[in-house]
Amino acid sequence: MSKDRLVTPRKLSGFMELTPDKQIVFDEMMDKIKNVFKRNCFVPIDTPVLELSEILLAKSGGEIDKELYHFKKGDTDICMRYDLTVPLARYVAMNSENLSFPFKRYQIGKVYRGERAQKGRFREFYQCDADIIGNENLPIPADAECLNLIDKVFKELSIDVVTHVSNRNVLFGLCEALGLTEKTSEILIILDKINKIGRDNAKAELIKLGVNEENALTLTEITLKCGDFNQILKEVESLTDNECYQKGINELKELSSLIKVMKIDNCALDLGVIRGQNYYTGTVFEAVCPAHTEFGVVSAGGRYDNLAGYFTEKKLPGVGMSIGLTRLFDLLDNNDMLPPHPLSTTKLCIIPLGETLNHCFELCAYFKDNGINCEVNYSDRSFKAKLKDANKREIPFILIVGENEVASGKYNLKNMQTGEQETLSKESCLERLK
Amino acid sequence: MSKDRLVTPRKLSGFMELTPDKQIVFDEMMDKIKNVFKRNCFVPIDTPVLELSEILLAKSGGEIDKELYHFKKGDTDICMRYDLTVPLARYVAMNSENLSFPFKRYQIGKVYRGERAQKGRFREFYQCDADIIGNENLPIPADAECLNLIDKVFKELSIDVVTHVSNRNVLFGLCEALGLTEKTSEILIILDKINKIGRDNAKAELIKLGVNEENALTLTEITLKCGDFNQILKEVESLTDNECYQKGINELKELSSLIKVMKIDNCALDLGVIRGQNYYTGTVFEAVCPAHTEFGVVSAGGRYDNLAGYFTEKKLPGVGMSIGLTRLFDLLDNNDMLPPHPLSTTKLCIIPLGETLNHCFELCAYFKDNGINCEVNYSDRSFKAKLKDANKREIPFILIVGENEVASGKYNLKNMQTGEQETLSKESCLERLK
Repeated sequence: MSKDRLVTPRKLSGFMELTPDKQIVFDEMMDKIKNVFKRNCFVPIDTPVLELSEILLAKSGGEIDKELYHFKKGDTDICMRYDLTVPLARYVAMNSENLSFPFKRYQIGKVYRGERAQKGRFREFYQCDADIIGNENLPIPADAECLNLIDKVFKELSIDVVTHVSNRNVLFGLCEALGLTEKTSEILIILDKINKIGRDNAKAELIKLGVNEENALTLTEITLKCGDFNQILKEVESLTDNECYQKGINELKELSSLIKVMKIDNCALDLGVIRGQNYYTGTVFEAVCPAHTEFGVVSAGGRYDNLAGYFTEKKLPGVGMSIGLTRLFDLLDNNDMLPPHPLSTTKLCIIPLGETLNHCFELCAYFKDNGINCEVNYSDRSFKAKLKDANKREIPFILIVGENEVASGKYNLKNMQTGEQETLSKESCLERLK
Repeated sequence: MSKDRLVTPRKLSGFMELTPDKQIVFDEMMDKIKNVFKRNCFVPIDTPVLELSEILLAKSGGEIDKELYHFKKGDTDICMRYDLTVPLARYVAMNSENLSFPFKRYQIGKVYRGERAQKGRFREFYQCDADIIGNENLPIPADAECLNLIDKVFKELSIDVVTHVSNRNVLFGLCEALGLTEKTSEILIILDKINKIGRDNAKAELIKLGVNEENALTLTEITLKCGDFNQILKEVESLTDNECYQKGINELKELSSLIKVMKIDNCALDLGVIRGQNYYTGTVFEAVCPAHTEFGVVSAGGRYDNLAGYFTEKKLPGVGMSIGLTRLFDLLDNNDMLPPHPLSTTKLCIIPLGETLNHCFELCAYFKDNGINCEVNYSDRSFKAKLKDANKREIPFILIVGENEVASGKYNLKNMQTGEQETLSKESCLERLK
């Protein structure tokens, strides 16, 4: 093909693509997350990446968000999923007769948001979700299970996090008690950014909204409460006897006790956790890295009263947690926080010297059968080039197999890190490698 | 939400979606395939599902196949990938300076074909690909590695297959030797369907194409050769001294010897394997299940002279194998050939009796810390309903925890298969469960 007909190879911007050595680390992180989900008895589902637009857009009454990848195929209006929650709702609504409740499912998959690409934002990213769906009712231990997953997942990943927990009924109820029910949405929008704009600015905004000085003070003060569950709950529990408020307080008390019982570490009560204007209706939580607050929220979730209200009349309350793995990996990578990793998963590379290729393959089969990731370098390059290649790829051991070695059944096993060489039978090589 | 505003939950047709118990089996199959790839020192990559149309359509000069999911987002022309090979070509062309060759990569991911949905055909399906890419050259052992992967993967999956192997140079060379070079494509199309239409019809079609009787006989006879490598190679090696033909024969001889050395089972030489009119240029292979020939080809692949000719002037020969996991799973499922599988992965369900929930969670943490998939049934249903649920979900063990049990530290462990009950300390329970 002549040069002028070549197409310049490039990928779409905003799509992560890793080198194999980093992909190995990424996959290991995903496996660790999956194993925590499994250990905790969550079962997997795998829904399609494509959904009918009427399903994905049910919430917005069919209005197309400009972030969505959306197209027509024949007469069918199709969207790429932008999260795993709407597909879960559709799945549960379709299969509710055959599922056992509480239904504990995990799903790890790519989701799509066609927003403007910018640093740290991806148009395709892996979401790792675990949700618990109840039928009619779902007790608070389900919320504790989600906090437990966050704790165990990040321990497994060796990343220190603190999970900030709140319950939206507290602020809902307080607004009601203060006679501000109609302004609740606007108030929450202001309080949600209190850590960004500061207490005084939040207060000023509340007053501008028509909240009086005293109430503005009460609202900002409670929002800034963050720390030990028992202490804060004691401080705020008598603030009002509003029913919704007391529901929030009581759920937080129960959660606090379960956190201890279930040995969940590193949770803080933080009444400033609001999680935007989304569908959460009770418990809400966000995990952050105290050593890297600039990472923002690395996992989050909460409780919703009704998962599948657009698809079924059944009342299906749920609670879930989610990790945006692509973004998390990118943050770790950019901050040199990835665990140490070799450039390949090859443990042993066999290098033939002379006409010994067949013997090398026999040896390779022996090592692989015994659990060693082993390969033969059969390329047509020089012996020296092969040594160099093994070095460049950081392969820990090489075995040099010349005709003498074949005759004697003793091989030179070289430790590439120490430079040590030993002459060993294949059985002894295997022992060294294990 | 009132009933008349409900959206009927449904998914797109042609998209597989499994129940959790089957998803567990699917995921286990995928893990097994992945582990064979890893053990053989293939490294992972994960390319985006979306590619620029100019990349995916480079081969067809930009012409859009009606099977493709294709759309515009702003000014960008985008396609969903229809295989993992073009993305691999793009990846290798973009990264060739930093890769070690031979580059052995695997990728497992969803691909998309918007064709008319029909039984056994999916619009979204998992492809499990392993390819080896050389720089300028790639020796025949790479082809043997792909056959080895097929052998080891299907052994791991406990599925009996036979891999039929050929080399396209044999028929290319034979056509050339018979003076039929210009008709090679048409001849291969006819020979490719010989097993479907039969030898006599194939001969008739060849004669209709202008091939004389004697040549038609030669071509159909060689195409029907299938069996032991050595025997068939002996029969056909002297048919012509055409250079291309001899190249095919010699490559098959080398491959045959490597198959023995690498202990690859269940390969047959089958000169009728052609693999359509695609890009393969040497070795080609197809694995079938002898006990279920109606499954058709369950894995296939072959050698291509130049992977990334549309994207780079570098010559990058490759060889690869692929398994369409979604279709394979569907076939196994429809024929009751899935391995036995429980409905959940829960090993132990703890059922509280009375006010013992906290103690149950402590026990649950103990079992999980010790490697047992354990959960507490904390739902607000009756004790009886919980027992029934554990039974329905085929959970192998339950632990009943009432107030007496909490006081004594001895618990009733019930084996749900045998009905046996034992009263044991938590440590003894753990032993039983392990």
